[in-house]
Amino acid sequence: MYIYPKKYDCIVIGGGHAGCEAALICARLNLDTLLITISVDTIGAMSCNPAIGGLAKGHLVKEVDIFGGEMARNIDETGLQFKILNKSKGPAVWSSRAQADMPAYRLRMKHLLEHQEHLDVKQANVDEIVVEDGRIKGVITHIGNEFLCDALIIASGTFLKGKIFIGLNEFHAGRAWEPPSDKLSESLAKAGLLIGRLKTGTTPRLDARTIDFDALEPQMGDEEPTPFSFKTENFNPPNYPCYLAYTNEKTHKVIHSNLDKSPLYSGMIHGIGTRYCPSIEDKVVKFPDRERHQIFLEPQDANSNEIYADGLNTSLDYEVQVAYLRTIRGLENVEIIRPGYAIEYDFVNPIQLKHTLETKKVKGLFLAGQINGTSGYEEAAAQGMVAGINAAMYLLEKPPFVLGRDEAYTGVMIDDLVTKGVKEPYRIFTSRAEYRLLLREDNTHLRLAKKSYKYGLLDKIHYEKIQEHTQKLNETINHLKKTYVMPTIEFNKKLESIKTKPIKAKTSISKLIARPEVDYKTLETIVSDLPQLDKTITQHVEIEVKYEGYINLQKQQIEKFKKMEGIIIPGDFNYNIVAGLSAEIKTRLKEVMPKTLGQAMRIPGMTPVAIQIISIFLHKKNVQSKPA
Amino acid sequence: MYIYPKKYDCIVIGGGHAGCEAALICARLNLDTLLITISVDTIGAMSCNPAIGGLAKGHLVKEVDIFGGEMARNIDETGLQFKILNKSKGPAVWSSRAQADMPAYRLRMKHLLEHQEHLDVKQANVDEIVVEDGRIKGVITHIGNEFLCDALIIASGTFLKGKIFIGLNEFHAGRAWEPPSDKLSESLAKAGLLIGRLKTGTTPRLDARTIDFDALEPQMGDEEPTPFSFKTENFNPPNYPCYLAYTNEKTHKVIHSNLDKSPLYSGMIHGIGTRYCPSIEDKVVKFPDRERHQIFLEPQDANSNEIYADGLNTSLDYEVQVAYLRTIRGLENVEIIRPGYAIEYDFVNPIQLKHTLETKKVKGLFLAGQINGTSGYEEAAAQGMVAGINAAMYLLEKPPFVLGRDEAYTGVMIDDLVTKGVKEPYRIFTSRAEYRLLLREDNTHLRLAKKSYKYGLLDKIHYEKIQEHTQKLNETINHLKKTYVMPTIEFNKKLESIKTKPIKAKTSISKLIARPEVDYKTLETIVSDLPQLDKTITQHVEIEVKYEGYINLQKQQIEKFKKMEGIIIPGDFNYNIVAGLSAEIKTRLKEVMPKTLGQAMRIPGMTPVAIQIISIFLHKKNVQSKPA
Ligand SMILES: Cc1cc2nc3c(=O)[nH]c(=O)nc-3n(C[C@H](O)[C@H](O)[C@H](O)COP(=O)(O)OP(=O)(O)OC[C@H]3O[C@@H](n4cnc5c(N)ncnc54)[C@H](O)[C@@H]3O)c2cc1C
Ligand SMILES: Cc1cc2nc3c(=O)[nH]c(=O)nc-3n(C[C@H](O)[C@H](O)[C@H](O)COP(=O)(O)OP(=O)(O)OC[C@H]3O[C@@H](n4cnc5c(N)ncnc54)[C@H](O)[C@@H]3O)c2cc1C
Repeated sequence: MYIYPKKYDCIVIGGGHAGCEAALICARLNLDTLLITISVDTIGAMSCNPAIGGLAKGHLVKEVDIFGGEMARNIDETGLQFKILNKSKGPAVWSSRAQADMPAYRLRMKHLLEHQEHLDVKQANVDEIVVEDGRIKGVITHIGNEFLCDALIIASGTFLKGKIFIGLNEFHAGRAWEPPSDKLSESLAKAGLLIGRLKTGTTPRLDARTIDFDALEPQMGDEEPTPFSFKTENFNPPNYPCYLAYTNEKTHKVIHSNLDKSPLYSGMIHGIGTRYCPSIEDKVVKFPDRERHQIFLEPQDANSNEIYADGLNTSLDYEVQVAYLRTIRGLENVEIIRPGYAIEYDFVNPIQLKHTLETKKVKGLFLAGQINGTSGYEEAAAQGMVAGINAAMYLLEKPPFVLGRDEAYTGVMIDDLVTKGVKEPYRIFTSRAEYRLLLREDNTHLRLAKKSYKYGLLDKIHYEKIQEHTQKLNETINHLKKTYVMPTIEFNKKLESIKTKPIKAKTSISKLIARPEVDYKTLETIVSDLPQLDKTITQHVEIEVKYEGYINLQKQQIEKFKKMEGIIIPGDFNYNIVAGLSAEIKTRLKEVMPKTLGQAMRIPGMTPVAIQIISIFLHKKNVQSKPA
Repeated sequence: MYIYPKKYDCIVIGGGHAGCEAALICARLNLDTLLITISVDTIGAMSCNPAIGGLAKGHLVKEVDIFGGEMARNIDETGLQFKILNKSKGPAVWSSRAQADMPAYRLRMKHLLEHQEHLDVKQANVDEIVVEDGRIKGVITHIGNEFLCDALIIASGTFLKGKIFIGLNEFHAGRAWEPPSDKLSESLAKAGLLIGRLKTGTTPRLDARTIDFDALEPQMGDEEPTPFSFKTENFNPPNYPCYLAYTNEKTHKVIHSNLDKSPLYSGMIHGIGTRYCPSIEDKVVKFPDRERHQIFLEPQDANSNEIYADGLNTSLDYEVQVAYLRTIRGLENVEIIRPGYAIEYDFVNPIQLKHTLETKKVKGLFLAGQINGTSGYEEAAAQGMVAGINAAMYLLEKPPFVLGRDEAYTGVMIDDLVTKGVKEPYRIFTSRAEYRLLLREDNTHLRLAKKSYKYGLLDKIHYEKIQEHTQKLNETINHLKKTYVMPTIEFNKKLESIKTKPIKAKTSISKLIARPEVDYKTLETIVSDLPQLDKTITQHVEIEVKYEGYINLQKQQIEKFKKMEGIIIPGDFNYNIVAGLSAEIKTRLKEVMPKTLGQAMRIPGMTPVAIQIISIFLHKKNVQSKPA
């Protein structure tokens, strides 16, 4: 066995979205890092849809951005269309989304990694992890070379025992025609990790020249696009159109009558698929009353004719794919460039992980991305970021980096994963975040800059800039709270002119802004001497003022909750001696071994009574054990 | 079995250099064409060195260009450095070479194919060919779909039963970590084709940041770069440096003492490698007296840190690769991004092909590129071009497109392949061309425009432009032949001033230009009223005038040879009845079944006496069989 002479602090397996962020962050924290991936040509590759962001996913991208990751900057530099979704709803659920130029995205990421100080990139397929005394030691590649490290992050995506299905055909692959990684999951099992099986699918890619775009509805990006990264300046991206199409009764009929040719319905696929991103065959079967389903036709790169058919993820037979596509208005003569397919792969149930994404079984072994049962680039990237930071903290013997559910969507996701585990591919939603009014996209960098700076993930210049912005914001709000207008006839007339009710008493400007129908810009037209604000500050002021009531309520809830949440359960806590807990609940608690009462609360099936029992038990024990 | 509803005129298997040219040309000749390839992301990928052109290869690129192919335009648009090699030698062996930006080259080719009218592109792995009554009918993909066609071009490169070796490790792959095509060669064998096994290898890719470039010699491109394509205008490419390094005694020692870890020397590899592009281990073993070997360190793309180590193709163990690399000055601390490897693959001995690249066994089945036992992008592209044109001619029932040995390097190559067959990977050399003074790079488009136009491969506008150029060239030469200078004292003094001998009699300008030491530009300084010529015409004039004697000699040889060359041997010719031929020579002749006496002459081992015997026999037979 050849042992590579250079020993790395941290090795990252996988050049996908999780692996790239993990490797970059470790290296940026000055650790000697090695990224090993099956093909360096596919670093940063998008396996499925040509888009970054989307509902709740946009939040994750911005969180990765403030903690020193690259996804936001990468899409800002290479995106083809930018849009804020949910603009008609409250700011808590506004989400950024961009169409990506897939090769441009991939190549920029590859080049960036190659130029990152403290980071080596090597092409190899890892077969085994090396564990000694419960601690990670290194990895062994397919050609029998050992690379040593003190921390290892595995971000192997859908590649572990990957098996692809198109109709009743199956073949081994990690993604389209890429080789799978067959041995690594066996090695993980040997190290004591429980392995499960999941599945996901992708849509056919169509030839743009064979689509009748005139029959379809174009969908443009925002005219004033907003970048993902707080660092992006002079943002002037292109605005490529997408197109909206619909399935119809004919489409559904073709699919229905060919379910016998579906690996999903014929029982060939054993892995569990996601409820949230179902295949078109699932949609047709599960929602028989729906007359049509939306399809978005999206460009894959600036110069290519390949069109991604968002909404048509499928593992039906090639013949059926051709047939049902051609029932769709605009696609009557469509040619497929790449067929859709399903992929089944091994994953590690994340219930076996700490909040740092370190495995409980093996010290120094971290897992990130789809290997943890999630789906989606953004979910992967956010986990990569957390695993990267924590691998560094572990190596530097510093306190772990854990984001609370009240701090970030990433915190929500990871808490969900390690507390509840995964039974089907997990994706993020705004509804998963209890405190979503606080965890808005717009203030991500304002909320998290301090923490990022503390962990060395944010440079001083940017940190100070963000602080200045925050200060300006607070000062402005205070100023507006203390600036009053009088209920004069003249002023009430002006209020009427901007379509809002008159005031009856001396009123602060902030009270006026709090009215749903009033915005800062129109207020400026009737109140002189309002502070001049740029676009971003104006938006922040409006949101903070309008939603102040809700925001404060959420803050109070957090405080209350934190008290309970913060109660630590010792690592060696013996649930057997706690009287009054059911056997079932004891089993669940022993499986998860929650670190805090808060985490215990979120275990599925947990009852408030059980939590109270534990809380009392802990309190008594604490009182008893306090030094006299 | 699903039979795809659209029937194609021509299907091309493989998106490599042969497949791309074949598909483009078929489609450009208005045939409904389908390109099927394992991954559309690797269309136009360079498996090995990041360069196009080189000795004799540059000629092929220019031939592909004039016959409607794309390689020349593609490198002109995406190259990183351009250079004419052999400038110190005669113009016959001047050769263009360019460093390539690999991803840029690949993506431009992919986009071009996707936008080509009459061409569909589909991602699939072909398992079988369908033959009926000795005629091609279609192909069957890995997922059991049949695509129908009247002509099929297989350009599957190194993928047939591809097996990769790194040290004593072997695994199945078509190229680096791409899946092989395991079933197709079985299907070809079933159709009656004899399959052989060859091998080739590639070099490690290095991390630029770990190379000490200051210790190495930079190599720049030409300051006034020349494009490959006659169509390229406003040529202003970048000029990235390459670097020259050398192996040394230590390097050789490391390699020598580790040959037991070489799949080549331990007998694991059965395929035959190329003599002309040997691995570093081969060089070290076969040339024990050489103190050092040159290595060129070349960029792989404009933004990447990956450096290609030209000259270090190897299948030695990873450990040994690291060790010997680090003995080289400038590479003491080098990190490998991708290791070098060898690949063994099935090929079809091209002796089973006609000059059109159609198989003799199956009508409508054409083979092009590395599957025919060649090596090199340019060799592949030129074959793709020939196979594409001939598939079209076959379908249109027009006369075949065959380039003579006196017409083009492509003609030389294909004649070599189908006449002599292949025992080791074949690559082109200037020495393979008997008439290389005629087959210069500089006049490729002038020589071949007429033929290209005739076959519909050249548009009228470009054709007329080239004709104008040719006319201007001829007129100028005639004019210079008829323009005289007198042996005056004054003029002889001028001649002395430009360092050439005085004249003794009335002398034509062309005679002066014919002198090796005289060029047109300096002549202009002493002779007034010389026609004003642009750079290209000047160059052509100089070459034609200086080498007129040799050129005429070659033309005469061709005429003489053509008489014999042209003598047709009937397809059913019975060598058994020819008295005086040895059994061995009869066997060879029956294997090849040459179409002409010329082709018979080039069969290895053929003797002049044997040719004479056949010639006399044919002559007699002809005289006898002529109608009275
Ligand atoms: C067919 C398909 C359909 C999908 N559909 C959707 C969808 O509809 N919606 C959605 O949100 N997401 C979808 N995804 C998921 C999305 O692509 C992933 O969630 C995301 O890419 C995961 O990122 P990752 O970094 O975890 O892994 P990946 O992006 O898969 O990257 C894994 C990396 O690890 C490398 N690797 C694996 N094993 C080894 C090894 N042993 N040694 C070295 N390197 C190794 C691989 O080469 C690769 O670079 C789909 C994925 C696939 C394949
Ligand atoms: C490791 C290595 C080292 C090399 N070293 C050198 C060198 O030193 N010097 C040199 O001049 N040349 C070298 N070459 C050769 C050079 O790369 C090839 O000659 C050239 O690329 C051949 O072009 P091609 O079009 O014939 O095949 P390729 O470029 O190999 O392309 C083949 C294409 O066919 C597709 N394909 C294969 N089978 C199927 C199927 N069943 N169904 C669908 N699609 C299929 C593949 O996906 C691929 O797109 C090397 C190649 C390799 C792999």
